[in-house]
Amino acid sequence: MKTGVLGAGGWGTALSLILLENGHEVILWTHDSSTKKEIEKYRENKTYLPGIRIPSELNITNDSSLIGEAEIVVNAVPTQFIRGVIHDFKIPLENKQIINGSKGIERNSLKRISEIFYECANVTADNYAVISGPSHAEEVTRKSPTNVVAASEDIFLDKQVQKLFTRPEFRVYTSNDVVGAEIGGSLKNVIAIAAGIIDGLELGDNTKAALITRGLAEISRLGIAIGANNLTFAGLSGLGDLIVTCGSKHSRNRKVGELLGQGKKPDEIINTMKMVAEGIHTTESAFNLGKKHAVELPITEQIYNILFNDIPPREAMSNLMNRSAKREWWW
Amino acid sequence: MKTGVLGAGGWGTALSLILLENGHEVILWTHDSSTKKEIEKYRENKTYLPGIRIPSELNITNDSSLIGEAEIVVNAVPTQFIRGVIHDFKIPLENKQIINGSKGIERNSLKRISEIFYECANVTADNYAVISGPSHAEEVTRKSPTNVVAASEDIFLDKQVQKLFTRPEFRVYTSNDVVGAEIGGSLKNVIAIAAGIIDGLELGDNTKAALITRGLAEISRLGIAIGANNLTFAGLSGLGDLIVTCGSKHSRNRKVGELLGQGKKPDEIINTMKMVAEGIHTTESAFNLGKKHAVELPITEQIYNILFNDIPPREAMSNLMNRSAKREWWW
Repeated sequence: MKTGVLGAGGWGTALSLILLENGHEVILWTHDSSTKKEIEKYRENKTYLPGIRIPSELNITNDSSLIGEAEIVVNAVPTQFIRGVIHDFKIPLENKQIINGSKGIERNSLKRISEIFYECANVTADNYAVISGPSHAEEVTRKSPTNVVAASEDIFLDKQVQKLFTRPEFRVYTSNDVVGAEIGGSLKNVIAIAAGIIDGLELGDNTKAALITRGLAEISRLGIAIGANNLTFAGLSGLGDLIVTCGSKHSRNRKVGELLGQGKKPDEIINTMKMVAEGIHTTESAFNLGKKHAVELPITEQIYNILFNDIPPREAMSNLMNRSAKREWWW
Repeated sequence: MKTGVLGAGGWGTALSLILLENGHEVILWTHDSSTKKEIEKYRENKTYLPGIRIPSELNITNDSSLIGEAEIVVNAVPTQFIRGVIHDFKIPLENKQIINGSKGIERNSLKRISEIFYECANVTADNYAVISGPSHAEEVTRKSPTNVVAASEDIFLDKQVQKLFTRPEFRVYTSNDVVGAEIGGSLKNVIAIAAGIIDGLELGDNTKAALITRGLAEISRLGIAIGANNLTFAGLSGLGDLIVTCGSKHSRNRKVGELLGQGKKPDEIINTMKMVAEGIHTTESAFNLGKKHAVELPITEQIYNILFNDIPPREAMSNLMNRSAKREWWW
C-alpha cells in the first residue's frame, strides 16, 4: 500500500518504520528541510530518535504534493500545528483515509484532532481513525512489546489499521470509540504533569498511585460527558497510556511536572525544552472543556493554577488532598 | 475508643500508630515474643518498620485474652495464618467489629478474608469492614499523603472506620463493596509478580503499562463474576493499589517477579525472603477461583505456570503476547 506520514518527530518516524517493515511504501513528509537532509545523509533521525537506523527505502520529502499519491495518510504533526500545516502546506487530503497518531486538544477552538480534520480537510468520520496507547517511540523502535488501540467509527477502517500496523511486537486492538481514544490520549498529559509534580516534591508512591487513580476518574468523567464509552478509559488508550506517561522516564510531560515540583517556573521549563510538552496546552484546553461541559476536574484545575496563575505546586497539591473525603465514587 | 490490632508486621504497626495518633487506646497483639520484647526495649519495630519511633502509649502483648477488652479489632495477620491464629490463640472475637487490613485468598478453601472471619469467629457481615488502597506501610508512617477505601456492607461501619483512621495525610473514602475491595487487594499481587517479571526481563515501559491495563481487566472480570461492583476496580482498592504494587520498589511481590525474570527459581526466591510474598499463594488461589467461576485469567495462568509448572518466564510472557489481537473489550 502507498502510505504518507506527516511529521518526522519520534512517533512519525517510528510509525513509518513499522509500515515499512510490513512491506508498505512510505513517504515521510516534514516541513523541516534540515531534518530531511539529516535523515538522508545519516539515515538516522538524530534529534528525535537517536540510534535507530532508517532504511534507504523510507522516502523523506519536504514536498507536500507527494502526499497526494498516498492512499492512507498518517498524522504525526503535533496538535497545535495541524490546522496551520494543512492550510499553509496545502496538504492534499481530499478523499483520503486519515490515521491520527498525535494527542491533544486544540487551544481556543477546544477541538479534538478528528474535529480539526473534519473541519480543515473535508475528512469524514468513516475515513478517520486514531491509533493510541502506551507506546513511547523509542521503545517501539527497539521492539519492546507494545499494545495499542486503533479506533474508528467506520466498521472496516479499524481492522484495516490493525492489519497495516500489526507486527510481532506491536499488537493492535480495534475499537469504535474515537472520542474516548482522543480524550484519554490528550488528558493523560495533564495528569502526567501532576504525577511529575509528586515526583518533584518527593511525596511518594502512595500519593502518586492515588493521583493516577483519581486522574483516570477525572478523564472518564469528561470523556463520558462528551460522548465516549466509559470502558475505553479502562483500556490501553486510557489507563494504559496514563500509566506509561505518569511513570516513564521518557515522558516529557511528567518531566515538566517534576521540574515544577523542584521549584522551576513554567516559563523557564518551556524555554529549555527542545520538544513540545503537549500537556501544557492540553491543561488549558481541558480546563476550558470542563467549564464548557460543566464537569468538575479538580486535578486539571490545580495544574492550570500552577501553570497559568502562579500557584506554588505544594499549595496546589495540598488543595487537592484537603477536599473532604466522601464516598469513593462521589468525587 | 479501645482498639486491638492483630499482627505486628509493618502494616499492623502502621495502623496501630494511626489509631494512637487519633487518641485511641491500642493493644497490639503478636504471637511472637521476640517482636514484643524488641518493641518494648527499643520502641521500634526493627524488622518490619525500621526507623519509626513507637510511642510508649502503644501496648504490645502476647496475651490474646487482652483483645477481649477491645471494642474494635483490626486484623493484620497474613491471610494464610488467620484461621490458625484465631483457633490456636483463641482470639476472643465474639460480637466484635473487625476491620481487616490484610490481603489475599486462602489456599485450598479459596475463601476471601471476610469469609474466613464469618466462618471461624462468628463475625457477621454487618460487623466486618476492610481497609484497602495504595498504602505501603513505610510511606504511611513517614506521612506520605495516602488515600484508602474503607468498605463494609453495614451502612454505618464504613463511616466509623473512616472516622477512626482519618488523619491529615491519611484520607479514608467509604464504600459498600467488600467483595470488590477484597478481590482487588488480593489479585493485584499476582499482576505485580507479572509486572516484576517484565522488569526482570527488561521488556520496557510500554509492555508493563499494557500488562497492568490488562491485569486490571482480568481482576475485574473475576471480581464481577463473584459479585463485586465493577467501579470498585477503577478505584483506590483496585487500580490505585495495583499501580503502587506494580511500580514501587517497596513491593515484595513485584520483587519476586523481578528475580524470576532475572532467572532465579521460585524455591530459591521463597527461601531467601524474610517476609511472605502473599502473591505466590494468591496466584494458586486465583488460578483455582478462575476455574471454579469459569473466568478466563490469562495473566494469572501464565504466572501459575512459571511458579508451579516450571515454565520459563520469557516463554510465559511470549504466550501472553501471542494471543490473537481482538477487539479491545473481548479479551
